[in-house]
Amino acid sequence: MNPMSPGNRIPKPRLETTLLRAVRSAVGPAPIRLRISGVEEQYGSELRLPEISIADWRTALMLLLNTELEFGDAYSDGRIEVKGELVSTLRLIYESRGLHGFWPQLVAGFQKLIHSQSISRARHNARQHYSLDTDFYSAWLDRALIYTCAYFPEPNVSLEAAQQAKLDLVCRKLWLQSGERVVEAGCGWGALALHMAANYGVRVKAFNVCEEQIEVATESARRLGLQRQVEFIHDDYRNIRGKFDVFVSVGMLEHVGKSHYEDLGKVMQGTIGNAGRGLLHFIGRGKKANLSPWTQKRIFPGAYVPALTEALPLLEEREFTVLDIENLRLHYARTLEEWLSRYEKSFDKITGRYGLNFARMWRLYLAGSAAAFHTGTLQLFQITFAGNKCAEIPWTRAYLYRGERRSGSEQWTTAM
Amino acid sequence: MNPMSPGNRIPKPRLETTLLRAVRSAVGPAPIRLRISGVEEQYGSELRLPEISIADWRTALMLLLNTELEFGDAYSDGRIEVKGELVSTLRLIYESRGLHGFWPQLVAGFQKLIHSQSISRARHNARQHYSLDTDFYSAWLDRALIYTCAYFPEPNVSLEAAQQAKLDLVCRKLWLQSGERVVEAGCGWGALALHMAANYGVRVKAFNVCEEQIEVATESARRLGLQRQVEFIHDDYRNIRGKFDVFVSVGMLEHVGKSHYEDLGKVMQGTIGNAGRGLLHFIGRGKKANLSPWTQKRIFPGAYVPALTEALPLLEEREFTVLDIENLRLHYARTLEEWLSRYEKSFDKITGRYGLNFARMWRLYLAGSAAAFHTGTLQLFQITFAGNKCAEIPWTRAYLYRGERRSGSEQWTTAM
Repeated sequence: MNPMSPGNRIPKPRLETTLLRAVRSAVGPAPIRLRISGVEEQYGSELRLPEISIADWRTALMLLLNTELEFGDAYSDGRIEVKGELVSTLRLIYESRGLHGFWPQLVAGFQKLIHSQSISRARHNARQHYSLDTDFYSAWLDRALIYTCAYFPEPNVSLEAAQQAKLDLVCRKLWLQSGERVVEAGCGWGALALHMAANYGVRVKAFNVCEEQIEVATESARRLGLQRQVEFIHDDYRNIRGKFDVFVSVGMLEHVGKSHYEDLGKVMQGTIGNAGRGLLHFIGRGKKANLSPWTQKRIFPGAYVPALTEALPLLEEREFTVLDIENLRLHYARTLEEWLSRYEKSFDKITGRYGLNFARMWRLYLAGSAAAFHTGTLQLFQITFAGNKCAEIPWTRAYLYRGERRSGSEQWTTAM
Repeated sequence: MNPMSPGNRIPKPRLETTLLRAVRSAVGPAPIRLRISGVEEQYGSELRLPEISIADWRTALMLLLNTELEFGDAYSDGRIEVKGELVSTLRLIYESRGLHGFWPQLVAGFQKLIHSQSISRARHNARQHYSLDTDFYSAWLDRALIYTCAYFPEPNVSLEAAQQAKLDLVCRKLWLQSGERVVEAGCGWGALALHMAANYGVRVKAFNVCEEQIEVATESARRLGLQRQVEFIHDDYRNIRGKFDVFVSVGMLEHVGKSHYEDLGKVMQGTIGNAGRGLLHFIGRGKKANLSPWTQKRIFPGAYVPALTEALPLLEEREFTVLDIENLRLHYARTLEEWLSRYEKSFDKITGRYGLNFARMWRLYLAGSAAAFHTGTLQLFQITFAGNKCAEIPWTRAYLYRGERRSGSEQWTTAM
């Protein structure tokens, strides 16, 4: 198009080159080779770089105009290919862009898309693919079906052991005493509630909006003979009533949404008052960052990943005192890599059942989330707190670590 | 005044009774007997209650009109006496009033009065009694002259051991590596800087606005042969320049004042950039609470005790990530009781040198602060953080506790 005339010595840039440069500028200076429709960047003599290959110019253009949506869609349906290990390639991009590039935001947002669908859309949208639930998740989660960040006392323990170690770390942080009443908001398939009851002798009421998960959890309680100690309830956290000694929520705050923190605070105050203890475990950020208005409106209604300064008013305004905050982001990166590794082993089976597009989307989500936790784009906070009249709090945190190795080498009684 | 006529059957309340009731209402329902100018509350048959005795009606009236100032002044000059153990009596009052009574605020404010004078007024006000410094403090601090919250690995270790344990806990949290460069803002008499240099092989620049403390610290460095590793500098934190691997500040943030957090954030970012690590140790609150405008203006200009939501923007806005927050308020209560106990042993000597009024004022400050930390009116936070490009952060916190007992039973090499 614009063939150079012999008299014109200044070459006009071709559309391909311009687009390639624009995409490169968006990716940042990461050592990654870009290729669009067979046109490749010149990248010196380094031959073994990871490569992002974009199938056609239309996709490249869409990627520039509407990155957040297009990258996920295009990767899912194969118009974007990544040659090289997916997590480390995404990490290179994150690191070269810092915390504010659109790529990290994309993956963070993408993660929220899936999460928010899993609790709200899935409920309203007549069993879409997120209701695939237990069969799908059991292909790549640990045996106890724990879909939150694990805790690896040592980096090389297994995922199964690390999930059990996480459950027990939460129990120890909560300072559980036999006979106490615990309420759990957002209990997944019930692993934490069952662990608390079996190993700490507490009574638990555990809430979840996902009916299938509640059914599985209830069946597990029956099988383990814990049905008199643990009650699984199919309901929203906002409907929790009753008095408890301990409030715990692992992996729910992300889905609560900033505008509902007030509701959650009321529930916490109503259940444990000013004498109780509690723990919030959630995905957070190093600093406040909003998604674009479009993204918030169309893609992720409700969900929100808070910075600590956004999450803590929930406690301070209810006169709960922070006892301990731990950042476990490296553990979530490791957890996601474990999930991804198992996922890859089931990739063909998942593709056969749910389609290639879905299988690739989910792979990108796991890899992108791993990269986001590795690079600090996302954080994982565990906050232990107590009411201002709580009678007894631990003297130091040393007790948390005295028995730590046990969980790496032994099975707890509820491991399924 | 108002003698009852025989025809009037309703007795008019006497001024004394009214005042007594008003003071009682201010104290709250705590089981404490009040006595004003010999007039005593009726308090059933419980004979062994602690008693607050107010010498005269003028003091009682002043106490109601201007509590914050009058309680401290009247206790100091003996117009108010407390019969019963001072810390536990103040705790009773705090607990009966909750977090929002004026009594806790009084003591919190009183503490800030003394602190803020020790760093700002003392500097400008031509060596008032806060410049008494080293001699005075050595009468009741530990041997290393550490005037911040200690850390008791077990509740019954000595203050000396607990202060050394605190120094070492801070070093472990900072993940110090031999050869690294550390900057300390607000170094007191130098104990932490010397401990870091002697036990972790780091180079330290330590800043303090108090000249006498810098002189003592410099002499200690010389005596310990650490003068090539540790440089003590008589200057304000705002004048810190240079590049460092680690930033640490123990007990200074309270004095920085909210309006200067921005200055401190700039210094932190300027010194350790986005690859460094840091620790802030400070007195905080469970929730935001302002002193009265009068108090802020007249009594405590500059100083501020922040809630976490007020302190954390300092980090988030500079893209530092929180790794760990620990609340050590019970350790500060215990530290203050240790100080008070030593203080009482030197009470006569202190009275002889500085006068009874001063000696009683300082006693009230120590006892009131102990009560404030016991009841959760005040908190003690240690925040460990890292820049978002920090190459290596600890995998878990277990390493903090592996060698913990060592510090309770051994002397570190810098113990003075």
